[in-house]
Amino acid sequence: MTIGIIGATGYAGAELIRLLRGHPEAGPLILASSSHAGEYIEDIYPNLRGLVSSVLVSPEEAVAESDCVFAALPNGVGERYAGAAVDRGISYIDLSADFRFDDDEAVYSAWYGKPYDRPGLRECSVYGLPELNRARIRELAAQGPVIIGNPGCYPTGASLGCYPCLARGLAGEGPVIVDAASGITGGGREPARAFHFPECADAMTPYKTGAHRHIPEISRTLGKMAGRRVQLVFTPHLAPMNRGILSTIYIPLGPLPPGLPFDRPPSEEVLARAAEIRELYADFYKDEPFVRVLPAGTTASTRGVRQSNYCDISVHLDQTGTILIVVSAIDNMVKGAAGQAVQNMNIIFGFDERLGLDGVPAAF
Amino acid sequence: MTIGIIGATGYAGAELIRLLRGHPEAGPLILASSSHAGEYIEDIYPNLRGLVSSVLVSPEEAVAESDCVFAALPNGVGERYAGAAVDRGISYIDLSADFRFDDDEAVYSAWYGKPYDRPGLRECSVYGLPELNRARIRELAAQGPVIIGNPGCYPTGASLGCYPCLARGLAGEGPVIVDAASGITGGGREPARAFHFPECADAMTPYKTGAHRHIPEISRTLGKMAGRRVQLVFTPHLAPMNRGILSTIYIPLGPLPPGLPFDRPPSEEVLARAAEIRELYADFYKDEPFVRVLPAGTTASTRGVRQSNYCDISVHLDQTGTILIVVSAIDNMVKGAAGQAVQNMNIIFGFDERLGLDGVPAAF
Amino acid sequence: MTIGIIGATGYAGAELIRLLRGHPEAGPLILASSSHAGEYIEDIYPNLRGLVSSVLVSPEEAVAESDCVFAALPNGVGERYAGAAVDRGISYIDLSADFRFDDDEAVYSAWYGKPYDRPGLRECSVYGLPELNRARIRELAAQGPVIIGNPGCYPTGASLGCYPCLARGLAGEGPVIVDAASGITGGGREPARAFHFPECADAMTPYKTGAHRHIPEISRTLGKMAGRRVQLVFTPHLAPMNRGILSTIYIPLGPLPPGLPFDRPPSEEVLARAAEIRELYADFYKDEPFVRVLPAGTTASTRGVRQSNYCDISVHLDQTGTILIVVSAIDNMVKGAAGQAVQNMNIIFGFDERLGLDGVPAAF
Amino acid sequence: MTIGIIGATGYAGAELIRLLRGHPEAGPLILASSSHAGEYIEDIYPNLRGLVSSVLVSPEEAVAESDCVFAALPNGVGERYAGAAVDRGISYIDLSADFRFDDDEAVYSAWYGKPYDRPGLRECSVYGLPELNRARIRELAAQGPVIIGNPGCYPTGASLGCYPCLARGLAGEGPVIVDAASGITGGGREPARAFHFPECADAMTPYKTGAHRHIPEISRTLGKMAGRRVQLVFTPHLAPMNRGILSTIYIPLGPLPPGLPFDRPPSEEVLARAAEIRELYADFYKDEPFVRVLPAGTTASTRGVRQSNYCDISVHLDQTGTILIVVSAIDNMVKGAAGQAVQNMNIIFGFDERLGLDGVPAAF
Repeated sequence: MTIGIIGATGYAGAELIRLLRGHPEAGPLILASSSHAGEYIEDIYPNLRGLVSSVLVSPEEAVAESDCVFAALPNGVGERYAGAAVDRGISYIDLSADFRFDDDEAVYSAWYGKPYDRPGLRECSVYGLPELNRARIRELAAQGPVIIGNPGCYPTGASLGCYPCLARGLAGEGPVIVDAASGITGGGREPARAFHFPECADAMTPYKTGAHRHIPEISRTLGKMAGRRVQLVFTPHLAPMNRGILSTIYIPLGPLPPGLPFDRPPSEEVLARAAEIRELYADFYKDEPFVRVLPAGTTASTRGVRQSNYCDISVHLDQTGTILIVVSAIDNMVKGAAGQAVQNMNIIFGFDERLGLDGVPAAF
Repeated sequence: MTIGIIGATGYAGAELIRLLRGHPEAGPLILASSSHAGEYIEDIYPNLRGLVSSVLVSPEEAVAESDCVFAALPNGVGERYAGAAVDRGISYIDLSADFRFDDDEAVYSAWYGKPYDRPGLRECSVYGLPELNRARIRELAAQGPVIIGNPGCYPTGASLGCYPCLARGLAGEGPVIVDAASGITGGGREPARAFHFPECADAMTPYKTGAHRHIPEISRTLGKMAGRRVQLVFTPHLAPMNRGILSTIYIPLGPLPPGLPFDRPPSEEVLARAAEIRELYADFYKDEPFVRVLPAGTTASTRGVRQSNYCDISVHLDQTGTILIVVSAIDNMVKGAAGQAVQNMNIIFGFDERLGLDGVPAAF
Repeated sequence: MTIGIIGATGYAGAELIRLLRGHPEAGPLILASSSHAGEYIEDIYPNLRGLVSSVLVSPEEAVAESDCVFAALPNGVGERYAGAAVDRGISYIDLSADFRFDDDEAVYSAWYGKPYDRPGLRECSVYGLPELNRARIRELAAQGPVIIGNPGCYPTGASLGCYPCLARGLAGEGPVIVDAASGITGGGREPARAFHFPECADAMTPYKTGAHRHIPEISRTLGKMAGRRVQLVFTPHLAPMNRGILSTIYIPLGPLPPGLPFDRPPSEEVLARAAEIRELYADFYKDEPFVRVLPAGTTASTRGVRQSNYCDISVHLDQTGTILIVVSAIDNMVKGAAGQAVQNMNIIFGFDERLGLDGVPAAF
Repeated sequence: MTIGIIGATGYAGAELIRLLRGHPEAGPLILASSSHAGEYIEDIYPNLRGLVSSVLVSPEEAVAESDCVFAALPNGVGERYAGAAVDRGISYIDLSADFRFDDDEAVYSAWYGKPYDRPGLRECSVYGLPELNRARIRELAAQGPVIIGNPGCYPTGASLGCYPCLARGLAGEGPVIVDAASGITGGGREPARAFHFPECADAMTPYKTGAHRHIPEISRTLGKMAGRRVQLVFTPHLAPMNRGILSTIYIPLGPLPPGLPFDRPPSEEVLARAAEIRELYADFYKDEPFVRVLPAGTTASTRGVRQSNYCDISVHLDQTGTILIVVSAIDNMVKGAAGQAVQNMNIIFGFDERLGLDGVPAAF
């Protein structure tokens, strides 16, 4: 199967190359870039030296000659390639935000500052979080070409951390709070002051507090999981590491019983309740190939999922037992981008979902 | 003035040495360590080579020959030195948890697993958060020797971030959530798996979720600030950096007005309200020498306070305006430990509070 | 094929597990550890959670039930397992220094402080640098079980950087100088002060200057490559990164011609000569699956070989053209340890040498 | 004393601000920047918030109103400001390369691509390595305004590491090799691909091998120290840390005695000879306020000099005793830039050389 990658020179593109080159069903890769067409990818990524020797072509060429196209482009510019792909009858897996809001163009345009270019494409598009929408992806694929709105990195970690709790109706009144830290690759390949080594090394820095574009994407997904509106508070942070997103999620379970002290260590009851909810999570995800609910007593960390498509989840309660604290860890470039995109391709084409994604996470 | 430092070989001890050596009122330093007595401090800390050539003595000696003693010891072992100091009529600044709970021995023993050794010492002890207890410190100092329970690193950043909001009665129902990330020096100087470079570099890892010993300390301080009980949820994280604590704090202001959409960017009203609260914070702290409330549009980061005693605070609202998001940044080894201890010494002795602490934070 | 890994809980062991789990000829893995027997490997390495669920057994069991054994043990303790393997007729790939010196027991014992336990084992042992000894490995494998003395991490990068120059007789009088920096995983999994995050983060530190045990191993290998004695000066450094070894190698080509200025930028002649030598290197390694000689104008970096078995080499001259500067980069845990061990297994068993090692290096 | 800083927004400028604000003889600072004139420095450097509230002015203004000017500008653009300063009768401390070559314009222009703008300024200029040129600085200062060509970061560490050996005639035939690693702040404040966090974190990368502009500066300085031409080979590396330069220096002492084995651990004689040379170094630098020769058995590391003006030096021999290995460590932004500049100011004005520079290095 010939696979096209548009935006191949960005970090998500580079990660797609790494993953697809190890995918047993992936044949030739056609790498495309509007700004680097004519250059060799191995001159841009020294890790690819001697291994991937392609010359970069135009996006149009990639669409014209592939059996499936991945696009890792900035937001707002790729609908025409998606349209061209669908017109040719091939599926298009989009890593931007352009297909993440289905027919809710109003929310999209409120945050991304422009309307849809070709709204009709949403008829065959689906938000590509497999754990939520696997059936819908298959259904669309059975009918023709599919456009995947591949989830954002933060939304993937946040949503998977909340899903069992929301779907099982455990959450009480009040907002879900997601406090998340990302590695610097999340900022992309273009140099900028915020990602300049001396400005971000040895430091933790939140950004876009209360105004990050992933807010509506997460909020919308949580709503679908819960079957009701879910208020979301979200703060992203830059952490001094290359890869990974660690999301610490606070979900209110119910009001604090009157008279309960909240300055004592967790009681046996609280610990038992935490174990129960952990079991519920483990059961909920038991058939998911890429979600690992960790044993009681352990805590998810980005170091457990490095370079892999796994999402690790640990389940805790605060000392009073009234707030569920879920920690989820993903590799932002894999489950948070390229890996999930490959997972979606596997679903579309009926492959084993693990294909090309079954490497062991790197311990260090 | 001769100053003793007990536990001089730990990281807080080393930082005390660095700060006190630049303090114009500090005379000879007597460095003490029960496990390293007889060794040269410069053989342990190469940065001190040629600058601090003292031989380490026993803690008893340090107490006997100093005009003021700092103790950076593990929890639960230092009350006898504190007692000896007070018996000699000199003040004792304790960086452990042993004097942070005043006469609330029940809470202390619930979390630290032992009763007070000499409960009576609390008559002259005070929780040394200057912004909260400056007057009390001065009052005690006027009467005789003082024991300072120097605040924990996390509690300092968390409490200062909440103080104006709580003191001014802005907080509504529901828990205050503190999500904080610390540099690895917070774990101390002793090698351990969790702080082994390959285990913590390039990774974010929460720990002691819902069960960290700083919970009662923060909770108690927030209660004093608010004049009522305040429910606290607290999650600490290890971040791959040497220094700094970044606390992202979520304080509920009130219920979400019915019908308010929560998936839209913040409105003008929300931004204006955020600016108002920021003004309130700036006004609240306007006379504090070490708290900087940042201008609107900027976000606190650990990189702004590196190597310094400053606490930087930025004030934000979530997109609905119902949750106050406060970000506070400190250097965990300075305002979170040794610097605050020196600030307390300055207060006790009636020095300018900035003495020895007025260095510009390192930009990198 | 059943494969045993002795010392499975160390970092090299963990990397062997990662690589062998993706090796198409590797069947069940028997993981062994004398200190952790009875524990689950996934409780020790969270990245393995759900993927490798083995219980650790004793080294004896691993030897008894495997078709090939890898040993990642401290120096000086594994000869009995090697002997047991050979006695059983199976090959043994040893990642310690115990089999790197062939019959030169005097050099071994001068640096490692003990004689060989079973000197006779050297009859079927070989120094496992495939680029140098591939033929000998095959020859031994044709006769029976083989013991591989898998090269040290520093020796691998240093030797491969020197080989073409020495083998082609370019080197002149004077010592070869190898200045190398290693990621902290090179220090192993056991916590120690030198590898404690705050002691090594944000710092460069040389160690064992003029006295590192890899000196005789490198020196001996360079001698075999050159067909004469080669004086070696070697300085290892700890660099604040997890993985990788960067070796900058200085080889004298000949005396400085009298009158040649040495404070001017390199002349055209010097640049042309550098290009020639680069061509010689490229030609020398053209059939090697894991050595990449980089194009002129580029410089090897550990970031090009991350998580992979490649050794990247770039070739330069100093501004006078009298000193060859070779830069080699490897991943210390892969080509410098576990990957090279797997490469040796592939050679022993007649597999394609790339099997299980053909992943693309991670760009970040 | 009013002090002007031209180029105040770059990293060296920021470090000058930090140091001069703590200098007891420094009065008002006039901060200048041609590209940022009119902006507030604290909007550019959040660490300065509330502490340095100056508006940036034009370089001309800074020269016109100061008693001494520091310039941290790119190479090749600042001679006019230097000229204006001298014309006004004030000293000018230049952190670029423009005044490092005295009257040797040919070497300067060969590496920097342009002739001097005002060659005559070299009559009152001096290469500002205090350990080498202190007397000359004083001599010039006694006559009128001085222009300091403040040494480059690499040249400072390299030269100080070689000085005693060269001055005492220990070095034999053959090149001095300097292999050095710098923190990323050495690349300056402007974002660029090479300094983008994901491109340099967790990696070691050499650059400009055999062609770095510091080659002629170091070579020239070594020549003055030795009183003869000294061949230099120099390779700089980027290390994943913010600050520091670690230089590992190889100086040939003499030919290898025939028959001496070079694959054995260092003999007692070699160790004794190393100790002798260490003593020679210690004696040579015994009156230098900022050079620390470390005790035998210890090794210099950038972590010992962090945030300080110290240069730490450790002295070693290779195992044969024929190559002297000197390790020098500086903070590239302090002794390698701003700190040395302040040291030069102290000399010019007859202050104690330690003024403003006596802070203890930060242990972490």
